[in-house]
Amino acid sequence: MKPRIDLTLYLATDDTFIRDNSIEGLVQQACDGGITAFQLRLKRGTTLELINLGRRIKPILRAHRIPLIVNDRVDVALAVEADGVHLGHDDMAPEDARRILGPDAIIGFSVSNQLELARANQSPIDYIGIGPFALTNTKSDAGDALGVEATQSFVAESQFPAVAIGGIGERNVLEVMQTGVTGVCVVSAICGASNVRIATESLRRAVSGVKE
Amino acid sequence: MKPRIDLTLYLATDDTFIRDNSIEGLVQQACDGGITAFQLRLKRGTTLELINLGRRIKPILRAHRIPLIVNDRVDVALAVEADGVHLGHDDMAPEDARRILGPDAIIGFSVSNQLELARANQSPIDYIGIGPFALTNTKSDAGDALGVEATQSFVAESQFPAVAIGGIGERNVLEVMQTGVTGVCVVSAICGASNVRIATESLRRAVSGVKE
Repeated sequence: MKPRIDLTLYLATDDTFIRDNSIEGLVQQACDGGITAFQLRLKRGTTLELINLGRRIKPILRAHRIPLIVNDRVDVALAVEADGVHLGHDDMAPEDARRILGPDAIIGFSVSNQLELARANQSPIDYIGIGPFALTNTKSDAGDALGVEATQSFVAESQFPAVAIGGIGERNVLEVMQTGVTGVCVVSAICGASNVRIATESLRRAVSGVKE
Repeated sequence: MKPRIDLTLYLATDDTFIRDNSIEGLVQQACDGGITAFQLRLKRGTTLELINLGRRIKPILRAHRIPLIVNDRVDVALAVEADGVHLGHDDMAPEDARRILGPDAIIGFSVSNQLELARANQSPIDYIGIGPFALTNTKSDAGDALGVEATQSFVAESQFPAVAIGGIGERNVLEVMQTGVTGVCVVSAICGASNVRIATESLRRAVSGVKE
């Protein structure tokens, strides 16, 4: 039976926040605050650094029954026995990842244009990440902001549950949820908050309020 | 039955040579010239670039029955169905790689000091790469040159067949072989040669001459 992923409030990391913080403390507070999924993303670390990070984070997530998804790296996902991977167009093809990881792995795929959406709809995946929703400093190569209309049309055409990502925070989360996405994926809105638990609780209330 | 790896003349790539050349042409000429093993190493490419490179190179190597070893990336090795991986101290631990890749995979491990040699001797690997033998421009983080004496002592203490790597070319290949290594691993001596096939043939004759 494939483990389900609750996309309501999906936290992803990036290099800056991982290097600046105690990652265990951050993940613990975000779990306490109500994230429903977690993605380990570190673009410039060594393979061993990524594996060690994953192993430090996993018990905290497990205790909260929150899935650990690894960005890009199927090898790291296998080594730490993560729940799945999130892939972009520069990463391993979803077909290869599914063959290697098996039917129970959660596989996500990034969609930022019509071509990637068409590909996603033909791929053996579990969800899509649509973005960037708004302008973001976290990911310099993320491309133009999609905004409400494009996100809405991608959600409508997607065969899979969708989460919006990119430049999402308290100020625009209600607007994002009106596109029909299942949830939001955030980085700096949680990782960069002065109080991670309170910021998470507040976002979770906002997203869950729309879904109820 | 574990596929054997012939370490006599082991060619590794690096970012510069892969980006500057037609990689298929280079591999074809090196195979024709007599390499006995090949390592795909690309430190700054995307996962998809690495997988695509591996898929382009693999049929050429297969036609010559030369194993394809992937540096660091177990995910890429799985995706392209390579013969194994070569790991350093910043990469996945050999124990994890063996568990993921299975008993038939070839696993190599880099040794540049006594601590790494002790670890290698306890690891589920097939060969070690000892280096750097001499100063090299290919790998800026490779550390101090080991030279004949240290290499010789590492070979003597190793539980596994050993190949020397780092700054090895025609000028010093006979000196290297006197340390007792099974073979040599080269990058620029072949990739940077004006005629790859002739450079490979010449190195192969030198190494094989000592071994006979």
